Amino acid sequence: MKTELRIVFQPSGRTVHVLAGTKIFEAAARAGLLLQNPCGGKGTCGKCRVRIVKGACEPTEACRKLLGDEKTRDGYRLACQAAITEECVVEVPFASLYDSRTQILTSAEGKCLGGKPAVWKKYVELPPPTTHDALADLKRLERVIGRFHVNLNIMHDLPVTLRQDNFTGTAVVCASQLLAFERGNTEADCYAVAFDLGTTTVVGALLDLAQGREIAVAATMNPQISYGDDVISRITRAREDAHNVAKLQRAVVQTFNDLISDLVTQTGIDRHHIYEVAVAGNTTMQHFFCGINPSALGEVPFPPAYVRALLLDAREVALDLHPNAKLYVFPNIGGFVGGDTVAGVLANSLLDAKQPTLFIDIGTNGEIVLANRGKLSAASTAAGPAFEGARITAGMRATTGAIEKIVVENGDIACNVIGNAPPVGLCGTALIDVAAELLRLGVIDTTGRVVAPDELPATTPDAIRARIHDHNGQMDFLIAAASESGTGEPVYLCQRDVRELQLATGAIRAGANIMLRKAGLAPEDLHEVLLAGAFGNFIRRRNARRIGLLPALPTEKIRFVGNAACMGAKVVLLSAEQRDVAEKIAETTEHVDLSLAPDFQEEFSMAMLFPESE
Amino acid sequence: MKTELRIVFQPSGRTVHVLAGTKIFEAAARAGLLLQNPCGGKGTCGKCRVRIVKGACEPTEACRKLLGDEKTRDGYRLACQAAITEECVVEVPFASLYDSRTQILTSAEGKCLGGKPAVWKKYVELPPPTTHDALADLKRLERVIGRFHVNLNIMHDLPVTLRQDNFTGTAVVCASQLLAFERGNTEADCYAVAFDLGTTTVVGALLDLAQGREIAVAATMNPQISYGDDVISRITRAREDAHNVAKLQRAVVQTFNDLISDLVTQTGIDRHHIYEVAVAGNTTMQHFFCGINPSALGEVPFPPAYVRALLLDAREVALDLHPNAKLYVFPNIGGFVGGDTVAGVLANSLLDAKQPTLFIDIGTNGEIVLANRGKLSAASTAAGPAFEGARITAGMRATTGAIEKIVVENGDIACNVIGNAPPVGLCGTALIDVAAELLRLGVIDTTGRVVAPDELPATTPDAIRARIHDHNGQMDFLIAAASESGTGEPVYLCQRDVRELQLATGAIRAGANIMLRKAGLAPEDLHEVLLAGAFGNFIRRRNARRIGLLPALPTEKIRFVGNAACMGAKVVLLSAEQRDVAEKIAETTEHVDLSLAPDFQEEFSMAMLFPESE
Repeated sequence: MKTELRIVFQPSGRTVHVLAGTKIFEAAARAGLLLQNPCGGKGTCGKCRVRIVKGACEPTEACRKLLGDEKTRDGYRLACQAAITEECVVEVPFASLYDSRTQILTSAEGKCLGGKPAVWKKYVELPPPTTHDALADLKRLERVIGRFHVNLNIMHDLPVTLRQDNFTGTAVVCASQLLAFERGNTEADCYAVAFDLGTTTVVGALLDLAQGREIAVAATMNPQISYGDDVISRITRAREDAHNVAKLQRAVVQTFNDLISDLVTQTGIDRHHIYEVAVAGNTTMQHFFCGINPSALGEVPFPPAYVRALLLDAREVALDLHPNAKLYVFPNIGGFVGGDTVAGVLANSLLDAKQPTLFIDIGTNGEIVLANRGKLSAASTAAGPAFEGARITAGMRATTGAIEKIVVENGDIACNVIGNAPPVGLCGTALIDVAAELLRLGVIDTTGRVVAPDELPATTPDAIRARIHDHNGQMDFLIAAASESGTGEPVYLCQRDVRELQLATGAIRAGANIMLRKAGLAPEDLHEVLLAGAFGNFIRRRNARRIGLLPALPTEKIRFVGNAACMGAKVVLLSAEQRDVAEKIAETTEHVDLSLAPDFQEEFSMAMLFPESE
Repeated sequence: MKTELRIVFQPSGRTVHVLAGTKIFEAAARAGLLLQNPCGGKGTCGKCRVRIVKGACEPTEACRKLLGDEKTRDGYRLACQAAITEECVVEVPFASLYDSRTQILTSAEGKCLGGKPAVWKKYVELPPPTTHDALADLKRLERVIGRFHVNLNIMHDLPVTLRQDNFTGTAVVCASQLLAFERGNTEADCYAVAFDLGTTTVVGALLDLAQGREIAVAATMNPQISYGDDVISRITRAREDAHNVAKLQRAVVQTFNDLISDLVTQTGIDRHHIYEVAVAGNTTMQHFFCGINPSALGEVPFPPAYVRALLLDAREVALDLHPNAKLYVFPNIGGFVGGDTVAGVLANSLLDAKQPTLFIDIGTNGEIVLANRGKLSAASTAAGPAFEGARITAGMRATTGAIEKIVVENGDIACNVIGNAPPVGLCGTALIDVAAELLRLGVIDTTGRVVAPDELPATTPDAIRARIHDHNGQMDFLIAAASESGTGEPVYLCQRDVRELQLATGAIRAGANIMLRKAGLAPEDLHEVLLAGAFGNFIRRRNARRIGLLPALPTEKIRFVGNAACMGAKVVLLSAEQRDVAEKIAETTEHVDLSLAPDFQEEFSMAMLFPESE
C-alpha cells in the first residue's frame, strides 16, 4: 500500500488521510467540506481558494495565474488544482465553502435568495394596562408585533407571565402564529434543524436563525434499514401489516431525536430554542416519517397521499423540541420523485437555469432532473443500495476502514482507507474506481465480465494478473490480501459485485438518456451536470464517466453540489419565501415515469454495458 | 294552597302545573318552550298561536279578532292572551317557537340570518388513479370538494381508507379543514353542540346541522360553584393558587362531557358525529373553560387575556367528541362583558336595531346592552346569585319543590310549585313575586323594611297580618307553613332576603340608568326591552317592574328572548358567516365600566330603594 498523507483542515480541525496526488478539493470533500466549484474544477473561477498554513503544496500554473504571485507566496492555492504531496494543514476561508450560499441568506447584503426565516423573535416592552388602556393582553402584544394566531397552551399562562416581568418578554412567531412568549430577551437564541431523510442515511444540520448560518451537523444511518434496504421493500412491509407504518415511523423519529440531541450537545444550546424543523426526503421516506401509510406507492400508478408541502406541529410526530415547534415537510413531485429532489432543485435554483442542465442525486434511488428551456422534468430510478455498500461482497458504508479510493499505477494498487486504518471493505466510490481501472486494464470487459488471467493481453502487468482468482469458474479480483486487511480476510471485487454495479449504473444512465431524448437533447448539449448527494461528492468524475455512470462530458461540466436535499431544507428554514418556490417546483415539474417509457427496458439493457472507452 | 292545573304541551309532551289564571305563554315558558312574542304580549301579532287539543280554554276578544271564528272554533288561541282555567293539552306549532328563528337558518327559504354551517359533509365517488391520472390522493379529493388543510391524523390512513371502498366516502370539512373522511355516505349524520356556560348553570343544545335544527337540550349546574358562587370568588381562587385554574377547567370540561353524553343518550346519535362546539360564557367563565389564568380579571383595569373569538381543536380542552372536532369560543367585549353578551346581541340582531333597545341578561352577573343609533354599549353589574336562589334563606334553584310563582289575592297566598310537589323553597321568580305583592300590600316599604303587623294599615287582611313573625326584632314573612312544606320546616321571606333582593335589583337598575343617561335617553324613549336568560323568561314583568328591576314601561315593551347566549351559540354553528358579525359586535361595542362611572355609587343607593308605586 502507498502511504496515506494526513491533512488537517482549519478552522474545523477535520482531519483526513489521502493518497499522494489527491486534489485538495477532493480531500476537503472527504472531510465533509464541499468547496465552491462553479467552473467545475477548471481552475478558472478562483472560488475554491484555500491556504496552506503548514507543510507544502506545489502551486499549479492556474494557481499562479488566478491568485497572483503574492497570494501564492502566502500559501493560497486553488483547491481544484493543487495536489497533495505531503502532510499539511489547510485553512478553508468561509467564502470558499459551497454551503455559504445558504449562510448569507439572512445577512444584510445577502440578496442571493431573498426572504427571511419563517421563525422570528422580538423582545417587547409593553405598556402595562391602565383604566384608559384596558386592551386585552393579546391585543396589547399584537399592537407591537402584528396580528397572529395563538396556541391555547401559550394562552394558559400568558396573562401571568406578562405580569411577572412587567409586560416585557420575547415573542416567538412562525408564519403568523405565536409559538411562545419567553421571559427576558432571548432574541439571540433562535434555532432550526434541516433534515435530509435518506433511505440509507439521515443528516441533520442545526441552523442559528439569528445569525443565518449552520452551526453543527450530525448524521447517522436510517434505522428503517432493518425493515429493508430500499423503498420498495419497506413499502412491502407496510402492505403486509399496517402496524408496521407506525413502527417505521417511530424508528425514524427516534433517530431524528437522537440527532437533535447530538446537535444540542455539540453546541450547548437549549433544545427548547429550536422552533422549526424542515424535512426533505423521497416520497416514501416522507410518508413513513409522517406516519402516512405508503402502501399505494407500491402499485401502479404509485400515487402519493399528498404532494403539497405539509406545515405541521412538530409534536404531531413526537419530535423533542420546543413544544410548539413547527415542522415543514417538503412537497412531492410524484410517487417516486419526492421532497429531496424538490429541495435539491430549489437549492440549485434549477427553475432559473438558463441552459440545459442535468441534476443527478445518486442515493439508494437515483433522482434525475432535467432543466431545459424553463421547464423541469424529473424521474427516479431504482439504483439500489450498491453505491452505499450494500449487496456488494465487501461493500460497506463510507466509515472507518472503508477503502474510499483506488488508484492503479504500473500494476500497483494504491488504496485510501477512511480513518487511516487497515482496509475492511469497499465503499461506493472505491467500487467505481476499481471498476474503471479494471476496465482500462481490460480485466473487466464491456459486458462486465471479469476475464480469466489467460485471456488478458500480454502487456498486463503480472502483479495485476496475479490478483485474478478463480472461484468456482467465476473470476474475482483481489484488492487487499488477508495479511493487509483489518479483518484478516482478503478484500475482493467479485464477479457478482460488478453485476450489481452494472444494474445501478445502468438504471441511472438509462434514466438520463431517456430524459435527454424526450427533450431532444444529446449529452453534449448539456451545459452542466450537477452531482448531488453525500456519495456524489466523493466520486472521481473521470472514473464515473468511464463506467458510464455519467455522460461522456468533460469533467469541468460535471459539478459537485453536495447534499442538495439538506441544503434545500436549510434554504426553506432561512427563507420562508422560498417555500413558494418549492411549491412551484413540485407543481410544475413533469414527473417522468420511466417504467412507462416504451424504450426503458431496451435502454436499460444497453446502459448496463460499460462504454467501450473513455 | 290553590289547586294547580296540569298542562301538557304537544308534540314535546312536556308537562307543567300552573295556577289558574296563568297565561298559556307563561305556562309554555315554564315548560321550556319560549313562544314568539314580537308584540310583547299585546295580542296584536298573532305569532304565539297555539291550539287546545284537549280540555277547554276561553278565547279572549283579541283571540277572536286575530284568529277569526273558524280558527277559534278549532281550538286556536293566542298564548299571550288566553288564561288557563282547567287542565288541558296544548299543541304548539313549530312556527310559534321563538327558537325556530335559528332553526330555519339552513332551510331553503330561510334567509333570516343567511349563511351555512362551518361544518359540512359531502359524499364523494372519486375516479380511482390510473397511469394517466396518477394525482395524489389529497389532490384527487380536492378536485371534488375544493382546497383544504388536513390534519395529519387523517392522513395516516386516508390512502388505505380510500382504497378499501374504491375511492368513495364522506368528507367532513370545517372552515377549509378536512376533519374526517368517513366510510360510506354519512352526510345525514352531522351534529354540533351549542353551550351557554353560565356562572351558575350550563346549558347544551344539540344541533342537527344537516336539518338545521335543535334536536335535544340538557342543562346542569356549573360545578365550579364549589369554588365560589360568583366570578370574583372564582378569580380569587385562581389568584391564590394557579393550580386552581386547571382544577376549575377540568370541572367544567367534565360537565360539558356529561351534558354531551346526556344529549347523545337522548337522541341515540354517535358522539363521533359531533364535529363542532360553540361556547358562549362571560369573560371569566370562558377563560376558565380554556384553562387561561383569569387572575388579571381580578384587578383594575380587569383586562382579559383575549378578546377575539378562539377557533380551537376540541381535544385541546379534552372534549369527548370526534377527535378532530373544532371548538369556537365567543369573542369578548371586555373583562366583564363577555361572549355570552356577544352571543345574545348576535341572536337578537341588535347591531341592526333601528330604535333604542335595551337588552338585559339577568344571571349571576347582569349584563346590559344598549343599542342606540347604530351604536352598542355594554356593561356588567354584579347582581349576585340571589335570582338563582343563593344567599336567600329559603332560596333554591328552579327545580322540583321550588315555589316559582306567588299570587296574593284577598289575603290568600297562592303558590305554584315546580313538579306539583309540596314547597321546599323559593326560586328567583317567586322572590320577585312575593316582594312585589308585599310592596303592594305595604308589608314591605320602599326602603325594603318588612314592617311589623302593628304598623300595617287597618285594611290589611288578617291572614296577611298573621304571616308576619318577629324574629329577634326583624320581621319575616311566612310563605308556607311547616305543615304545608316538603321539609316540615316553614318557608319564610326574611328581612335579609329583601336586602339581598335590593342589592341585586339595584345593581341592574343602576347600570341601566347610567347607560341610558350616557346616551341621553329616558326609559320611555326605549322602543323595547329584551329580557334574556333562563331566569328572565319566567319573571312576571309587572312584578319585576314593581320592584324596580325593570324600567317603568308598559309590559308590551318588555319582550322575552329566552336563553340568548345559547341561541347565539346556535347561530354561529348554523351560520359560519355570523361569526364575522360576532367579531364585529365584540370590536365595536363600547365597554362601559360602571365602577368608573362617577355617579355609580349614588345611582346604586338610589336604585336600591323600591319604586313608590306601580
